[in-house]
Amino acid sequence: MLVFNKKNKGLYVIIFGCGRLGSGIANWLSLNGNSVVVVDRREEAFSSLSFEFTGFTIIGDATELDTLEIAKVEKADVVLALTPDDNTNIMTALIAKEYFNVPRVIARVYDPNNIEMFSEFGVEIICPTLLAVDEIQKSLGFIGGDEH
Amino acid sequence: MLVFNKKNKGLYVIIFGCGRLGSGIANWLSLNGNSVVVVDRREEAFSSLSFEFTGFTIIGDATELDTLEIAKVEKADVVLALTPDDNTNIMTALIAKEYFNVPRVIARVYDPNNIEMFSEFGVEIICPTLLAVDEIQKSLGFIGGDEH
Repeated sequence: MLVFNKKNKGLYVIIFGCGRLGSGIANWLSLNGNSVVVVDRREEAFSSLSFEFTGFTIIGDATELDTLEIAKVEKADVVLALTPDDNTNIMTALIAKEYFNVPRVIARVYDPNNIEMFSEFGVEIICPTLLAVDEIQKSLGFIGGDEH
Repeated sequence: MLVFNKKNKGLYVIIFGCGRLGSGIANWLSLNGNSVVVVDRREEAFSSLSFEFTGFTIIGDATELDTLEIAKVEKADVVLALTPDDNTNIMTALIAKEYFNVPRVIARVYDPNNIEMFSEFGVEIICPTLLAVDEIQKSLGFIGGDEH
């Protein structure tokens, strides 16, 4: 596990997709002393970044190798593929992992049906839908699943 | 807290919005012996329900009082407002809670900026984006926040 430490220089993290999740994580990582680059196709997406964000932004397509090279993916400690498109996320994550040998790669998956396939590629998966299902189950008293 | 128990009759749960989250919860609640009604504006949304789903479906708009009456919201133990629209969710949740006195009402909120306002209404909130932010933070080693 990577351990973040304010006393150290911080990590180099590249985030693809500057939506609510991407910008939230970007602001937070930046505030905690990490070097953050955020990539999005839409320039206006970067307006979600806070005033405290001290990283860089790149307008570009996560599926194009040029974009990954401009972002210096080969130097990244962590790549987060958080665009709104599952296929873009898995493609970007795979290239970062297999081609650029990035140590930690996490991809967001919207469709729970894609999780199994994505997991087979060895990419770490975040599925907000499943997290919400789990949270509602816990909230309703089903802690631990089918207890009764 | 409500405690679900297979030995009991189960709860009467109404779910507004049959997307990935709504259908996931609906299938699961139904499988666990609860009476489930799912409401969505789009008939095709119900195709996400599994073969094991034994509840009912209603085509209707969550913001219309007629729909809530057809769904018998006044008899519900739990109402889950899980449509793709934050305003619809909060409106439905508020009517269920204040007008129909439903004991447990949970609303999904997409935009983290809406959480504070929604919480002031006393509605329980599920925000998949914040859950995912939290999960990524934990995954990267920031367990418990700014530890270092």
